[in-house]
Amino acid sequence: MNYRMIARILGYAMLTEAVLMLPSVVIALLHGESILGFCAAIGCLIALGFTTISRKPEHNDIYAREGFVTVSLCWIVLSVFGALPFYVEEITTTFIDALFETVSGFTTTGASILSSVESVPYGILFWRSFTHWIGGMGVLVFMMAVLPMADNRNMHIMRAEVPGPVVGKLVPRAKDSALILYGIYVALTLIEVVFLLFGGMPLFDAFVHAMGTAGTGGFGIKNNSVAYYNSAYIDIVISVFLILFSINFNLYFFILLGNLRPVFKNEELRCFLCIVGASVLAIALNINHLYGSFGESLRYSLFQVSSIVSTAGFSTADFNQWPELSRALLVGLMFIGACAGSTGGGIKLSRVMILAKSSSCEIRRMMHPRSVNLVKLEGKTVSDEVVHNAQVFFLLYMFILAASTVLIACFDECDFTTNLTAVIACIGNIGPGLEAVGPMGNFAFFSPVSKLVLIVNMLVGRLEIFPMIMLFHPNTWKRV
Amino acid sequence: MNYRMIARILGYAMLTEAVLMLPSVVIALLHGESILGFCAAIGCLIALGFTTISRKPEHNDIYAREGFVTVSLCWIVLSVFGALPFYVEEITTTFIDALFETVSGFTTTGASILSSVESVPYGILFWRSFTHWIGGMGVLVFMMAVLPMADNRNMHIMRAEVPGPVVGKLVPRAKDSALILYGIYVALTLIEVVFLLFGGMPLFDAFVHAMGTAGTGGFGIKNNSVAYYNSAYIDIVISVFLILFSINFNLYFFILLGNLRPVFKNEELRCFLCIVGASVLAIALNINHLYGSFGESLRYSLFQVSSIVSTAGFSTADFNQWPELSRALLVGLMFIGACAGSTGGGIKLSRVMILAKSSSCEIRRMMHPRSVNLVKLEGKTVSDEVVHNAQVFFLLYMFILAASTVLIACFDECDFTTNLTAVIACIGNIGPGLEAVGPMGNFAFFSPVSKLVLIVNMLVGRLEIFPMIMLFHPNTWKRV
Repeated sequence: MNYRMIARILGYAMLTEAVLMLPSVVIALLHGESILGFCAAIGCLIALGFTTISRKPEHNDIYAREGFVTVSLCWIVLSVFGALPFYVEEITTTFIDALFETVSGFTTTGASILSSVESVPYGILFWRSFTHWIGGMGVLVFMMAVLPMADNRNMHIMRAEVPGPVVGKLVPRAKDSALILYGIYVALTLIEVVFLLFGGMPLFDAFVHAMGTAGTGGFGIKNNSVAYYNSAYIDIVISVFLILFSINFNLYFFILLGNLRPVFKNEELRCFLCIVGASVLAIALNINHLYGSFGESLRYSLFQVSSIVSTAGFSTADFNQWPELSRALLVGLMFIGACAGSTGGGIKLSRVMILAKSSSCEIRRMMHPRSVNLVKLEGKTVSDEVVHNAQVFFLLYMFILAASTVLIACFDECDFTTNLTAVIACIGNIGPGLEAVGPMGNFAFFSPVSKLVLIVNMLVGRLEIFPMIMLFHPNTWKRV
Repeated sequence: MNYRMIARILGYAMLTEAVLMLPSVVIALLHGESILGFCAAIGCLIALGFTTISRKPEHNDIYAREGFVTVSLCWIVLSVFGALPFYVEEITTTFIDALFETVSGFTTTGASILSSVESVPYGILFWRSFTHWIGGMGVLVFMMAVLPMADNRNMHIMRAEVPGPVVGKLVPRAKDSALILYGIYVALTLIEVVFLLFGGMPLFDAFVHAMGTAGTGGFGIKNNSVAYYNSAYIDIVISVFLILFSINFNLYFFILLGNLRPVFKNEELRCFLCIVGASVLAIALNINHLYGSFGESLRYSLFQVSSIVSTAGFSTADFNQWPELSRALLVGLMFIGACAGSTGGGIKLSRVMILAKSSSCEIRRMMHPRSVNLVKLEGKTVSDEVVHNAQVFFLLYMFILAASTVLIACFDECDFTTNLTAVIACIGNIGPGLEAVGPMGNFAFFSPVSKLVLIVNMLVGRLEIFPMIMLFHPNTWKRV
């Protein structure tokens, strides 16, 4: 284990976070708010960051194992320091609450413990949504894009931080890929800001919501989320952008190159749009009696489906009150999640597709034991290794979900649906669940231990399980 | 596809069922009850059975595909005719209700639609519990044991009907294996009857409960299940036999041969006993405040854990009213289920163990990409094929569970916990779930379509998914 190199990357990550806090400081100053919390955090980050990077590592090589561990550690450390402003400014009463809010931000979950978000200062609100934006594409991918780092190292980190069963580089160098990804990300976010401004949304609100959409996070700045604006235009703009941010970013790169064929032929995209379309229609029909017209119910259905499938978790209606079919469908979408290579969470559609195809292959094999059956996705054969990895991913996802539900039941006497959907919403990085953690509820009532379980769930979900498991696996720390 | 051979096996199965109905007829006659329902069923079975076996197949060979299809078809046909007595005697108002009750019997689920079981005639009650007994070990395995059939054919059928990831023959001939299995089964059942008689249980009740325990079914003959007898002795006898019937029957064969080594060294057994022990203790501590003493809570906890983990579903307490931790733990046990090669349902412990070990291998592989990692169970390497099959099994199990929950939500406006646990209880062949389908509730209130979904779930769970999927797979019916 190259401990010094891990420490060095951690140090750079801390310094990066200090810089990333500056826009929030500026906004706090503009509104005449206290910047004590940010100063404390930035101070700690700079002091610790420079200390850790001061010792030069003996060599620069890191391997898969180190890549996973580095990414997990970075996310934990950045969350701890990112929580300081919430705690110091007394937005939350306990540090665990502050940590919950920050992890929920970075992991783009959007589950909140704040009961009245409207009384929170602007600087903190901006930081809260900014964590979504930076966490969506990845803190380390950002670092990779702006700092000079060796390419072989970058690939290990990128593989551990970017969601999806296979991580493909857009261009030969990982650093350039990271730059292109962030370029597309910034552009799309700014376009959404402009669209929201056209809808009459104030500039600050537009930025916050665009960042929440881009990272598919879901933190709003109003107590009733996007419902506050009560505008069909804003609903539709956010819905459309949620879907745009749920798509594999590689496809935007192809569009930029003028190569539209792979976009139109993309199996995952087609499947994603079919699922979204079918769900929107089914739910609109199911909730039709609750709203004035089919147009209205279509509007609410579109918003909620895109908000859940993108794993953002904004809301314009209390879907906890919807009929059971709509509720069950939304919970189903929470599992699937967005496309691989997007900022969305969940199991990821391409992984679900690989799993479905491998099942169908197995059935064919059982029928005709001597036949050859290969799993194909996007016209290419998926290697046995990737299939196996997706199966283990699914298994661990379900196991962690079940274990967490039981653990929460140990410490909190909530109903089964609340416990289960709280865990589903956290591990899938969605935000709201059903019943007490529905869109009109929040996560404040959970005991500190349950909050810790949910914090781990959010990190496990965002980093796609393996990095977090490696961190706690005894083998990781053994000398080979 | 050797259609004539499939028809022939179906015919023999129908004739076998007609014979199996005779004990119930005798009991009905002894109690002076109507035997119209049984006569109708036996008449149909004999007429149709002889018709189907009259045409001789051109050759006797059947392959994996035919094995799966035959088993699925047999179970459906036998359930339809097994339901006739319930319908004709007007125990249920609709045929779908009668079918639900019969499938619940054969699949050893034990979920009931009867609101007052105490008013049902003895003959029908006996038949209802007899379906548990015969379904537990397998209708076709029974047929194999008593009828002269070719051995290569038997293996395909046994593989499709006997639960577990790998089916091993006890002795070289499948027919002899089936005979030994049924021998052990009959002996254990009779021993339980004797033990129950000692506890002061009437003879009829003892037989019914012994059959319900042996098949790990769970149909009782009192409205409040085993709680009616209010006897610690009876609770403990049933608990112990539930655990005995949840163990791989191959181990009893080893004991008969005087070979105790494989029993003590059996990984699955040890793991099973650990899980049972830990769950009993955890739940006893959790429900301690509800009962007078720790001894009492231990008694209720032991009974409920063994009843759920064996997937029988008897109850001595309304665990729906227990604290959330106990409820969540019981739902967790519903997924795991009993050992492979037992009469219990669920995913099966050895399959869960293979899945856990394969996950741990995958994590090691990701850490050290060039290391060799093999899944080992009971000291032997588990082939990639079996691992892959277990993974696909888990995947399909979860997918069918999710799809069924959504489907039920389409037709019934129950709460999420009721819908979800109803499906978990049916696909795992357990019986009771939580909330409206808890131990004090029943399944009568579901709409006919939801009942049909649950019927399919029970069959899918009992036959371990693949045979039922094959039946509806278009490829099965294609000419090769």
